[in-house]
Parts: sequence; structure tokens; C-alpha cells
Amino acid sequence: MSTFSRFTPLVSSLPATVPFVGPEAIERGRGLPVKARIGANESGFGPAPSVLAAIRDHAAEVWKYADPENFELKQALSAHLGVTPANLAVGEGVDDLLGLIVRMVIEPGQTVVTSFGGYPTFNFHVSGFGGRLVTVPYAGDREDIHGLLDAAKREKAPLVYLANPDNPMGSLWNADEIVAFARALPENTLLVLDEAYAETAPAGAIPPADALLDLPNVIRTRTFSKAYGLAGARVGYAISAPGTAVAFDKIRNHFGMPRLSIVAALAALEDQAYLADVLKKIVASRDRIAAIATANGLAPLPSATNFVAIDCGRDGAHARAIVDGLMAHGVFIRMPGVAPLNRCIRISTGTERDMALLEKALPQVLKTL
Amino acid sequence: MSTFSRFTPLVSSLPATVPFVGPEAIERGRGLPVKARIGANESGFGPAPSVLAAIRDHAAEVWKYADPENFELKQALSAHLGVTPANLAVGEGVDDLLGLIVRMVIEPGQTVVTSFGGYPTFNFHVSGFGGRLVTVPYAGDREDIHGLLDAAKREKAPLVYLANPDNPMGSLWNADEIVAFARALPENTLLVLDEAYAETAPAGAIPPADALLDLPNVIRTRTFSKAYGLAGARVGYAISAPGTAVAFDKIRNHFGMPRLSIVAALAALEDQAYLADVLKKIVASRDRIAAIATANGLAPLPSATNFVAIDCGRDGAHARAIVDGLMAHGVFIRMPGVAPLNRCIRISTGTERDMALLEKALPQVLKTL
Repeated sequence: MSTFSRFTPLVSSLPATVPFVGPEAIERGRGLPVKARIGANESGFGPAPSVLAAIRDHAAEVWKYADPENFELKQALSAHLGVTPANLAVGEGVDDLLGLIVRMVIEPGQTVVTSFGGYPTFNFHVSGFGGRLVTVPYAGDREDIHGLLDAAKREKAPLVYLANPDNPMGSLWNADEIVAFARALPENTLLVLDEAYAETAPAGAIPPADALLDLPNVIRTRTFSKAYGLAGARVGYAISAPGTAVAFDKIRNHFGMPRLSIVAALAALEDQAYLADVLKKIVASRDRIAAIATANGLAPLPSATNFVAIDCGRDGAHARAIVDGLMAHGVFIRMPGVAPLNRCIRISTGTERDMALLEKALPQVLKTL
Repeated sequence: MSTFSRFTPLVSSLPATVPFVGPEAIERGRGLPVKARIGANESGFGPAPSVLAAIRDHAAEVWKYADPENFELKQALSAHLGVTPANLAVGEGVDDLLGLIVRMVIEPGQTVVTSFGGYPTFNFHVSGFGGRLVTVPYAGDREDIHGLLDAAKREKAPLVYLANPDNPMGSLWNADEIVAFARALPENTLLVLDEAYAETAPAGAIPPADALLDLPNVIRTRTFSKAYGLAGARVGYAISAPGTAVAFDKIRNHFGMPRLSIVAALAALEDQAYLADVLKKIVASRDRIAAIATANGLAPLPSATNFVAIDCGRDGAHARAIVDGLMAHGVFIRMPGVAPLNRCIRISTGTERDMALLEKALPQVLKTL
């Protein structure tokens, strides 16, 4: 297959990978319909009815580009979070922001510290900018903040990634531990603190939005994709010191935000009653998943997210067989990518319909293994 | 304002610019409401009613990420264009694709050839990746393909940009001239042929979609933002040889496409009757803009796009005064950024309501100058 002869050496060296295979590709590849979509940590509870109404009401405005300054959304987030608009940057989902952050900091060959088994899309961006990944194993199925701190110092790394609550295990470090970790990092190491699951953590467990704004080397990322039920809208934001936040403006796609996604995010922020209701449903669904797992002799891990990691007690091949087996029943789930995390499967919270499908399929799958 | 101390030298050197100021920022800054939004080459005719219906019908699916392979849209585009899905890459608008293309090819210090006064967002991306811009003046208010070819060869440039039809002047090179230009370029120079305005060009003026697929050094970009009326949806695509198209998969944001935007693009592609109707309206509006200009002693340029550049006969300061003066009447237009193009103003086609506002405001503005 002939290709352009002069892509950069870096781009030429990269594989054409996808960080995750989508459920649609699995459906096409295996000829199986997804009946319970509980693998991508989306929210089957969906966004608020008020959000859907706002999308429908504003649909006819889709011919207009969104405001490149994201003024209105920044204002609303600012009021909601208790930070100033200058502390915020808006992007096309956290994935977009992570790519921008890596680009801001990493030149080819520079070191990035993350957890072994942490978010693959972050690693995809690191590879995409030629960074060198140094990974720290999970400890007790949590990201090891002490190990990450040691590695960041030892490697004099310009960038370190931590998800809290974490994906794929669902674990949590408490606010004071996270704050201590951030403050202990060298000031020339940038911490990406990915808080995609901030809303689903126990109240008070996440540092207040303004807790680390005095540290220019901390960027916290949040999203409307999880608890707010807007994965398909692609709205993420970053919280940081103003001098750091403004760096996004140097390289971001200024006209990149979809107009109806901004409409959706604004409506979602306004409907905190719906969010509170969904959070209760997420907690109930976590319990339901845990109960199903336990009833089948598997060991659910505690979760501060909208998914539950379940220890299946054996190796990655065994967990993979469960994932593949469930898909044969139309139940789409995922699993961590590396040992020892990959002894687990990962199931997103969802509606009772989804849970019933899982409950029915899981014992059937386990019986065949 | 304290900032992180270890951004890359490149990022540290960049200004926090916006390629274009949005109409919302102008409204906020000047306290003026936009009544006629005919400055950003959006489509005031809007997308098809069938597209709006599709968005509303599918709104409740927004909790799901879009298919990261964009399978369905690639299939539909493939059928529409007469190319294979392997010839296509989908992105969050042409702006996103341009950023990816620059990243694929340009290392800091490498040369990029474009026209002086060409698309600023492309230049923004070139600067953002540390490229060195070499510009070729317009000739006779058209991009100078002979000059671009000479410059690309002389500079041994890895990347050259041409918009056809062009923005901001609305000019056109015919299919055989474009094909000859592409074929004359060195095979180690990548041509970005930006065809954002392909649909509004006269029938037969644009090379068929499969005309240049044997050249791995050509990427053509298209969009749903202009004639299809979906600027706010952010859907663009690239057409190239398969070996070149696959390079996007190495670095693109795989889960970046908004789900409802894919829905909108699919519906828009299906409704070619609506597109044909809008194209007639665009031609009529171009004529209307030209007539208004002529009636006011200004000289409209021929246009193959959804806007008309109008020669105001003096310098950039004069044109700027007209742009600012029209905004005081709520008429948002733009103008080219550099001399001698900036003797012109640029007015997007729009509804009769927009045209009537323009017709009323323009003589009042000119009288004050």
C-alpha cells in the first residue's frame, strides 16, 4: 500500500492502533448485536430529559459554529465549581485535552510517568508525541501514588498521570492524600489529575475544585461523558492555574466544540437534581453488579466510579473468555489490559434491563469455562 | 501570572491567539447583537429539515460514544463519492484534519508553502507544530498555483496548502488545472487540497473524487460545515490514497466524533434534493450580494463559494471601517487579513432577511466614511 514518503519519522514509526475497539466494531466483526451496552463506562441512564429537550430545541442552530471562547460554558462551570473562568479550558472530551496536555509538555524521548494498566488513551497520546512511558504497578488494586511520586522524581519526568477515581479498577484516594501527592511533586513535573469520575465518588472524597489552583503544575480534567450521560457529545474541561490554562489557547482547535454539545452541557449543569438522581442509580447499580458477581463466585472490588471491576480469580485469558462469552449473549463489557489487573472484568453501571441481561448471561458463560 | 515552568520551548514560544474572533465575542465586546450572521461562511439556510429531524430523533442516544471507526459515515461517503472507505478519514471538521496533517508531516523548522492571505487556521496549526511558513502572493485575486509549485520545489517543502475554491477570495481553478498542479508536485511534497467549498463550485469544476487517488502525496479535505449547513456539528473528511488515509488512525482522537454530528452528516448526505435547493439559494444570494455591492459603487469578485469578496477600492483600513460599521448595524461580516486582499470585505450568502439588513446598512455605513 503506497503511502506518502515523507511523514515524520515519529509518525512513520507509529502503528495505526485504536486505543479501544468500539462496541459497533465488535457487533460488525462478530455479527452479534449489543443488547446491554455496559462496557465503555457510558451512562445507560442517559442525560436529563431537560438536556434532551435543550438539544431538540436548539437543533436548528447547528448551522452556526460554537463560540470559540466557550464563554457561556466557562461562566456556568465557574459558578458551579467556585473557580474563575480563567481557571478553565474546554475541550472535545478529556481525550482531546489529554492530547493537548501531552503536546504542551512532551518532546520526543521525554519521560511520562503513569500506572501500568492506566488509561490507554493517555498512553496513545504519549506515544503519538514520542514520549517514553515509565509505568508504576498498581498496589493493592489502586494506583500507587507513592510509587508514582518516586518515579516522577527519579526520572525527573516532565509529566505524570493519575486518574482519581481510577479507571479501570474504580479505586479512590481521598482528598487529603491527593493534595499531599500533588504538593509533593517537583514543580517542574506537570500532574494530569484525571477526574473523569469525580461526580461518582463519595461526597467530600475529591479535593474541592479550588484546592490546587496555587500549583501551576497541576491540571485536573473533568467530563460530561460519565455521570452526566453525554459521552457522545464530547465535552471535557480542565481546571488549573490561569497561567497554565491559557496554554491550551495556544494550540487547541478553537472552533472545535460542537454547538449542540455546549447546549447539552449547559443544560446538564443546570439540572443538578437529575444528576443527584442518577448518582443514586449508579450506586444502586454498583451494588447490583457486585451482588451478581458474588452470586457467581466472583469478587467485586469497591468502586468510586460508574463501573465495577470484578476479580475473576484467575488470569487474563480466563477474564477474556468471560468478556467474549458475555458478548455472545449481547452483553458488552470490557476488562483491564495488563496483568495482574486483567484477572478482572469491568462492568459499567446501567439500567435494570442491562442488569437483568447480565444476571442471566453470566452464570451461563461461567458454566462453559 | 505563574505558569508551569516546563512547557516545551515551542509551546512556550507560541502566543495564545485565536485564528478568528467569533461573532459572540464581538457581541460581548461591543455590546452589539448580531442580526445578520453573514461573516463566517456558515449557511444561514441551515441544514435540511430531514437533518434536524434526525438529530431530534436520535438525541436520546447522546449518552453513547460514536463508533470510533466511523464505519457508517465512511460507507455513506464512499457510496456518495465513488471512492472506497479506505480512501477516507473522518475528523472533527476540516480544522481538526488540518492539524493532524501538519502534525503528520512537519517537524520544527520544516517548511510549509501556502498563499499569503490563505486560511489562517492552517497557518495556526503550522505555527503550532513549529513549521516555517513560506507564502506566495495571490495573483489576480486567485491563489497562484504556478507560484506555489515553484515555491514547493525551490524550498523542497514537505507540505503545501491550496484551497480550491479559495477562501477568502472565492476564486476557482478548474479541474484540469488542479490535477496538473497536483501531478507536477514532487512526490515528497504533500498537497493539502482544501475543498471545503467543493459543493458550491460550478458543476464539473472540481476534479472527481477519485481523480488523484493514485498520488499518495495528495489529501483533499471536505466538510459538512458549508453547503450542508452543519458548521456547528464539526464533521470533516479527507480523501486520499489508502496508505495515506491510514496515517490519520495513528494519531487522531478515535473517540472524538460527536454522535449526533454523525447522525446529522448521514442524514445530510441522504438529502441531496435539499442540497440542490440550497445551492440554488447560494447562487441567488451571491448575485444579490453582488448587486448590493454594485449599487453602492463597490466591485464584487466572481465567487465559486458561499460568500462574495467585494473590492472596496481602497486599503485595509477602509475595508475594516466598513466591517466595523456594518457590525454597528448588527451585520456581521469579515475581511481578508493581508494586503492587497484586504482592500476587500467578505460577505457570506444568507437568507433574504440577512440580505435586506445588508442592503439597508451598507449605504449608511459608506456615507459615514
